Amino acid sequence: MPEVRSNPVPERPFVSFLSDYGTTDEFVGVCKSVMWSLAPDLVLVDVTHDIPAHDVRAGALTLVRAAQYLPEGGIVLAVVDPGVGTDRRLLGIEVEHGTLLGPDNGLLAPAVAMLGGARRVVSLTNADYQLPAPGPTFAGRDVLAPAAGHLAAGVALAELGDEVDAAGLVPGLVSLPQHDPGGAIAGEVWWVDRFGNCELNIDPEELTAHGATRGAPVEVRFGTEVRAARWVDTYADAKPSELVLVVDSYGLTSLALDRRSAAEVCGLRAGSAVTLVPPGATVSDEGTSPNGSGEPG
Amino acid sequence: MPEVRSNPVPERPFVSFLSDYGTTDEFVGVCKSVMWSLAPDLVLVDVTHDIPAHDVRAGALTLVRAAQYLPEGGIVLAVVDPGVGTDRRLLGIEVEHGTLLGPDNGLLAPAVAMLGGARRVVSLTNADYQLPAPGPTFAGRDVLAPAAGHLAAGVALAELGDEVDAAGLVPGLVSLPQHDPGGAIAGEVWWVDRFGNCELNIDPEELTAHGATRGAPVEVRFGTEVRAARWVDTYADAKPSELVLVVDSYGLTSLALDRRSAAEVCGLRAGSAVTLVPPGATVSDEGTSPNGSGEPG
Amino acid sequence: MPEVRSNPVPERPFVSFLSDYGTTDEFVGVCKSVMWSLAPDLVLVDVTHDIPAHDVRAGALTLVRAAQYLPEGGIVLAVVDPGVGTDRRLLGIEVEHGTLLGPDNGLLAPAVAMLGGARRVVSLTNADYQLPAPGPTFAGRDVLAPAAGHLAAGVALAELGDEVDAAGLVPGLVSLPQHDPGGAIAGEVWWVDRFGNCELNIDPEELTAHGATRGAPVEVRFGTEVRAARWVDTYADAKPSELVLVVDSYGLTSLALDRRSAAEVCGLRAGSAVTLVPPGATVSDEGTSPNGSGEPG
Repeated sequence: MPEVRSNPVPERPFVSFLSDYGTTDEFVGVCKSVMWSLAPDLVLVDVTHDIPAHDVRAGALTLVRAAQYLPEGGIVLAVVDPGVGTDRRLLGIEVEHGTLLGPDNGLLAPAVAMLGGARRVVSLTNADYQLPAPGPTFAGRDVLAPAAGHLAAGVALAELGDEVDAAGLVPGLVSLPQHDPGGAIAGEVWWVDRFGNCELNIDPEELTAHGATRGAPVEVRFGTEVRAARWVDTYADAKPSELVLVVDSYGLTSLALDRRSAAEVCGLRAGSAVTLVPPGATVSDEGTSPNGSGEPG
Repeated sequence: MPEVRSNPVPERPFVSFLSDYGTTDEFVGVCKSVMWSLAPDLVLVDVTHDIPAHDVRAGALTLVRAAQYLPEGGIVLAVVDPGVGTDRRLLGIEVEHGTLLGPDNGLLAPAVAMLGGARRVVSLTNADYQLPAPGPTFAGRDVLAPAAGHLAAGVALAELGDEVDAAGLVPGLVSLPQHDPGGAIAGEVWWVDRFGNCELNIDPEELTAHGATRGAPVEVRFGTEVRAARWVDTYADAKPSELVLVVDSYGLTSLALDRRSAAEVCGLRAGSAVTLVPPGATVSDEGTSPNGSGEPG
Repeated sequence: MPEVRSNPVPERPFVSFLSDYGTTDEFVGVCKSVMWSLAPDLVLVDVTHDIPAHDVRAGALTLVRAAQYLPEGGIVLAVVDPGVGTDRRLLGIEVEHGTLLGPDNGLLAPAVAMLGGARRVVSLTNADYQLPAPGPTFAGRDVLAPAAGHLAAGVALAELGDEVDAAGLVPGLVSLPQHDPGGAIAGEVWWVDRFGNCELNIDPEELTAHGATRGAPVEVRFGTEVRAARWVDTYADAKPSELVLVVDSYGLTSLALDRRSAAEVCGLRAGSAVTLVPPGATVSDEGTSPNGSGEPG
C-alpha cells in the first residue's frame, strides 16, 4: 500500500478516472475540462479508458485491482454505463477514505466493498451541480464530471442530491470459483493483461488447501484441453514455452508463459472457464457446472 | 456549459491539446515537456491525439464539439498538419475568451467561428519563442508547443509574431446538408463515436421542419439501402437490433442501435452519405447531388 | 532544445514516464497514483506507454529521442522489463541534470550517455522506500514508482539503496551502420513513426561524406528491392508516390513518402536492414554482413 497521509483530506484534490470511453473521441478530454474548470488545483489520474464498451464486469474488476493503490481521501470517477438514458441512478458513494461516483449498475460495488463499505449514498439529482445538455444527458460530462469537480472544490456530497439506502444498490456480479467435491477448482479468467497473463478468480490459498504445492505441477483444463502447469514463483522461472501458474502481483493465481502471451497460446480471454486440478484431485460432473456469482473477497 | 469563472484569466493557465500524433510515439510527450518547461503551473488536457493522420476535417469537427466545454480563457493547441514543411502559416488566433494555436489549414476555423470569431491573428514567426531543430522544423515541438508554453507563462500573443488579417485565414471545410425539394435531407456522417453511433450533419430542427416527429419512423438511405429508423429519445429506447435516430448529446441527429455499433451494422464511416426522408417527403434527383461545404452553424 | 531554467532544480518536481505497459490495463494509472500520493505537487508527463512489450531496444531509442526535450533536473521513469522476477537490478542513475530510474538491462544506457554519463548509480534495494506486494513484486508499482515519488518529494537518491559501480551497467544494444568499402552504408530502420516515416540509424553527414548531395538521388536497398530515393529538404518536397530521403526532426536520415506510409509501401519495420548507396558507390559482399552494435553517437 502507498504511504498514506495521516490526514485523510489530500493536499490537493485527487480524482481517479476509469471509463469505457476510449481515447479516440473527445469524451475523456471534455470530462476532464469540466472537472478542471471547477477545481483548477485537481490532480487527475487515468486508471484506464479502454474498458471494453459496456463491459461493467471488466470495469468493476479493474477498479478493484486499482482501488487499493489510489490515494486516501480521493475521488473515484467510473463510467461504464450501458444503461445511459434509462432510469438507472447515478450515485456518489462515500467510503471511509474517499468517494466513488458512477452509475448504479454494479460497477462500483466490488470496490466499495473492498474499501470498507458504503457510509453514505447520494443519488446525484441536484441539477444545480449539473451541466445543461444540448441533447440528451451525457452522464459523464453533464452529471458525473461536474459532481467530481464540485466535490474536489469542496462541495459536500450531501449537496449533490438525495441520500438513498445503501442496501438498495445494484450488486457487483463477478464470478467466484466452484469447489468440486473431488478437489478440483472450477474458476474462470478474470483478466488478460497486456502481456497475455491470465489472472484467474482463484486464491492461491485455495490451491494450497486442495493439495497443490509450489514447484509441483497442477493440471489445468480449459476448452477441450488438459495441460500440466508448474506452479512457479515468478514469470522468469518458466522454461521456454512452459505453461506455468504464478501468484500475480495482486495476489491471485495466474496462468502465464515467460515473455509470451498465455492467452494467445491457450486461446483464453476474460470469462473463459479454467479448472485447476491439484495433484490427487479429480473432476466430478458438478465441477463443470456454471460458476456462482458474488463479490470478490 | 461548465460554470465559468467571472475572471476570464484562469487561476492556472490551461492548454487543451488535440493532434493526429497518436500516443505510440513520443511526439505528444515531447510537446508537453516543452510546454511544462516553460510554464510549470500549467494544466494540460488531452482532447485526443487519435485524429486520423492528416485528417484536418475530423480534427476540426472534434475541436468544435469539444470547444464549448473547454475553460474560458484557456489555450487550445491543435496539430493536424499535412502541409508540414510547406509555407502554410502557423497561427495564434485570439477569440473572446482564449487563444487557439495551430496551422492555417482550416483546422481551427470552425471552432474559432463557434467561439465568436477571431479578434486578432498572429503568424508565429518570432524565432525567439521557438526551439532550434536538429533537422527540419517539427512544428508542434519547435513552434506551437513553445508558443503555448510562452502564452501560458504570460507572454502576449503579439510578441510571438506579426499580426495578419483574419480575413485571409483558410476556411474550414465541413459539409452542410442539402435540402431536397421533395423534403428529403441529404447529409453525411460527421463522426462515428467509440460506440458506433453515427452523428449526422443534420440539425433535428431541420427534421422537424420537414415533417418528422419524435416516436415516428424516418426513412434512412445510405449506399443502396433504404431503411426505416424510429426517432427515439434515448439509445435505451431502441429495441434489440432496431435502427433508431436520436438527438445526441451535442444536439445533432445520430443513427444508433442500442448497445451495438450502428456504423458496423450499416457499413457507415465518417463522410458516408446518409439521406433522411421524413414521412411524406420524396427524394428527387437533386437530392443525391454532392453536398455543399461550409462551416457548422 | 527547450529554454532551460538557470536553476537545475525545477519549480515543481517533474517525472517523465515511459513503459511498455500499454494503457488498457491499470498499470500506468496505479504507478501514477503511487507517485502522486508521495509527491502531490508532481508534474507527470507520459512519454509513451506503447513501447512493444519487452522491446528494450525500442524503449531505449524512444528515450534517447525524447531525452533532450525533457526538463532539466527532472526524473525519468522507464519500465521495459522482460527480466522481471530475475535478479536484474533496478537502478537510479544520476546524470548532470536529472535522475533516471529503471531496470539494468540497457534501457537507460543510451539516454544516460546522451545526457553526459552517470555521476552516481544506486541499486534500489532499500525496502523502506518500496511498497509491500500482495504477490511477487510488480517492479514499476512497488519499487520504481515509489522511488520516483520519494525523489520528487525530496528524498536523496543515496537513501534509496546502495551505490554501485557505473562501469558495471548493462550497455545499450542499438545498432550502428556498417560502412562498405565500396562506399555504401548498410544500416537499419531504428523507428517507424505514426506517419510511416522510417528513421534510419544513418547520420546525414555520413551520407554527405560518401558523396550524396541534397536534391540528388541515392540508391536504397531493402529486402530484394533496389530503389532510387531523392534526398529532399522536407516531406512536402516529395512528388506523389515518390520515395524520398529527408533529414528528420531529430537530425537523422529518414525514408519517407508525402502523406503516405513509407513503411507500409516498402514493407519496412523497426529493425529492417536498409542499405544506402550514394552515387558512384558500390556494395561489396561485406556490405551485407550483420550490423555492429553499440550506442548511438
